[in-house]
Amino acid sequence: MENQSVKRIAEAVKLDSFALAAATESIRNVALKAIANALAEHKDGIIAANEKDLRLAEQSGIASPILKRLKFDETKLGDVIRGIEDLIDLPDPVGRKLSRRQLDDNLILEKVSCPIGVIGVIFESRPDALVQIVSLCLKSGNCAILKGGSEAQNTNKALFDAIYDAGIASGLPKGFLTLLQSREDIGELLQCHESIDLIIPRGSNEFVRYIMNHSEIPVMGHADGICHIYVDKAADIEKAIPIILDSKTQYVAACNAVETVLVHEDIAKDLLPPLAKALKARDVSLYGCARAMEILSDIAAADETAYFTEYLDYTVNLKVLANLDEAIDHINRYGSHHTDCILTEDTETAEKFMQRVDSAGVYQNCSTRFADGFRYGFGAEVGISTGKLHARGPVGLEGLSTYKYKLFGDGQIVDDYATGKKTFHFKELS
Amino acid sequence: MENQSVKRIAEAVKLDSFALAAATESIRNVALKAIANALAEHKDGIIAANEKDLRLAEQSGIASPILKRLKFDETKLGDVIRGIEDLIDLPDPVGRKLSRRQLDDNLILEKVSCPIGVIGVIFESRPDALVQIVSLCLKSGNCAILKGGSEAQNTNKALFDAIYDAGIASGLPKGFLTLLQSREDIGELLQCHESIDLIIPRGSNEFVRYIMNHSEIPVMGHADGICHIYVDKAADIEKAIPIILDSKTQYVAACNAVETVLVHEDIAKDLLPPLAKALKARDVSLYGCARAMEILSDIAAADETAYFTEYLDYTVNLKVLANLDEAIDHINRYGSHHTDCILTEDTETAEKFMQRVDSAGVYQNCSTRFADGFRYGFGAEVGISTGKLHARGPVGLEGLSTYKYKLFGDGQIVDDYATGKKTFHFKELS
Repeated sequence: MENQSVKRIAEAVKLDSFALAAATESIRNVALKAIANALAEHKDGIIAANEKDLRLAEQSGIASPILKRLKFDETKLGDVIRGIEDLIDLPDPVGRKLSRRQLDDNLILEKVSCPIGVIGVIFESRPDALVQIVSLCLKSGNCAILKGGSEAQNTNKALFDAIYDAGIASGLPKGFLTLLQSREDIGELLQCHESIDLIIPRGSNEFVRYIMNHSEIPVMGHADGICHIYVDKAADIEKAIPIILDSKTQYVAACNAVETVLVHEDIAKDLLPPLAKALKARDVSLYGCARAMEILSDIAAADETAYFTEYLDYTVNLKVLANLDEAIDHINRYGSHHTDCILTEDTETAEKFMQRVDSAGVYQNCSTRFADGFRYGFGAEVGISTGKLHARGPVGLEGLSTYKYKLFGDGQIVDDYATGKKTFHFKELS
Repeated sequence: MENQSVKRIAEAVKLDSFALAAATESIRNVALKAIANALAEHKDGIIAANEKDLRLAEQSGIASPILKRLKFDETKLGDVIRGIEDLIDLPDPVGRKLSRRQLDDNLILEKVSCPIGVIGVIFESRPDALVQIVSLCLKSGNCAILKGGSEAQNTNKALFDAIYDAGIASGLPKGFLTLLQSREDIGELLQCHESIDLIIPRGSNEFVRYIMNHSEIPVMGHADGICHIYVDKAADIEKAIPIILDSKTQYVAACNAVETVLVHEDIAKDLLPPLAKALKARDVSLYGCARAMEILSDIAAADETAYFTEYLDYTVNLKVLANLDEAIDHINRYGSHHTDCILTEDTETAEKFMQRVDSAGVYQNCSTRFADGFRYGFGAEVGISTGKLHARGPVGLEGLSTYKYKLFGDGQIVDDYATGKKTFHFKELS
């Protein structure tokens, strides 16, 4: 494989994708089961490979959050194996009849779900993401071409070998899974718009934005996660403070962590002092608008750039506003259309917010950290999309599927309908 | 408007799109009714404007098929008005609850359909397309920015004025509809990825391909329509010939016209002579592979380029193949993923073809010309998509919609679930 160009590899995978698209549910589920078993069998080798990656990473002085994501121990292996077993039990995303309509006698139109085809996945250090994404692609009948981070290279190879051999032994076509190894392969991969149907990048903002700007292939994912909480005048302060704390500090490096808290002027004096105290107790640095600074004298000034910043850190902006409309405008202007929340006990206000805020997730009275495939009950996710076409928010099996129209006739020609010799008789069939 | 940059216009439209997204079904339908009435009232002015365009086009020697598409008389006006009235009666595409799931007590996740936002539409000479696309965008709560062909400029302006005034009088935000007039505006429009969510181009292959390659904005549509019919050995020749004739000649300039007919070797000798005779009787020029030329001595040779060509004319390729797999491979390689048909009485063969051919429409025993929003019973279409993400095939109201996730909570935080203090209780609600 090393000697082949990525273009040639992708072309071969494309051809195999038609065979995988036609594989029955049973073939795909049997292969998933074999993969789960193989991962368990190769436990020692996988963990040894990960230990090697961890040693190399430590030697090269890689930051500790990356080390944490890189670690793949027995617990994590157990989790991904259980994840595969859960996935096997989920309903088949392929071949669902999304609609069935009679156009005329013996002329039946079916809209049927089917795989997208070939998915290119470019991801960072987390080895569990590899297993998750591969199993979601397989369950949904898609071929996957993977490029993992170099720091996880030994772990990825060990995982790939176990998964690939189990898949082939179960009768899957060779192209069901490909692992690219060198960094230069990414550039070539992005040029394969004839063979690759979708790219899913998982990594830093800059990395994802680079991918989005350097390929004609559709990209599904998100670069920024600039999430907001708007505290309405009708908010319950008892609920508001824990929600804001959780949204900011439960995991600061997450894309669904809150970066700016907007506060209605009528509640600002009651909310901001205890909120600031609670945030500072968790070591959160505060930036504020002029009005917030009037109430909280000891915070720094938030400028225009601050509102466009995804901190991914223990930092938050506080801004006081006159009304709901200003909050909606701020979020639609500075936000990244990821997840935004209103805290209010007023249903009508919540409804207006949730209708007008142009984001994949619009929440009332709960933490922005809920934006996640597992927490949404999807079983798993390949990522979160802030694009508005195809899939939005956390993307699971459904986002890895498309559909085709099947039209079953008995000799019908269009000229008969164009000339009025026949007329359509539309009828929904179930 | 003439003095504003397209970027500034698009930014203003973006802001108005949030208001239009929140407009009730009743507001949108009342506006559609007012638009239908206004078009009827302004009949004389619209037809006079079209006559002016037609005169100018004739003077400049424009080809007659374009003149035909440009013509907008009382009959066509009546058709588009009836189209709007039909659209009013269709169910609201906005605010449909696509799913509703309990994540835990008082933590309810709803997936709700909503408009995409701002749609840029760049279209050719057909004035009826303008009315159709505008009314579909309005029904689905999207703002539309239009750029029509210069040859239809007077007609487009007359239609726009009538529609715009009626919309504004019905209370729609100003940005619901914008007409750009100059050709240079297209380049600027393609740069507005901050404000425009989707581009729909309607025009020649080269034009659509240019748009697709020159914008970061997602593009929905198709460049080529290279459609195939595969005549299986188990085909009924009595059905096959009329279907092929209709697919080729009912309207040769359509994207869903057939360009290559693939024939199983077992049926080639019986099918090709009467088929060639029937096609020639309709002035169709025939190209063929070596094996087809053995049977039909008086046809020209089809080379590799021929199979990649969308003729849009009275020309067709004939190719003899050994089996179904060769037909599927040919279509997936040379086709444009638009619409491809198998003629066979064998259900299992049809099923294999329809599963493995990677096209938006896969047909059995009927004309490829059925690939159309009206004929599918969608009411109307904004175009046909050969992309595999978001919308595929003829695109109607559903393809102009996206969704958002609304999460309704009562103070829930993620930390309680991460620490095991609480657990999720997923339950589908109806």
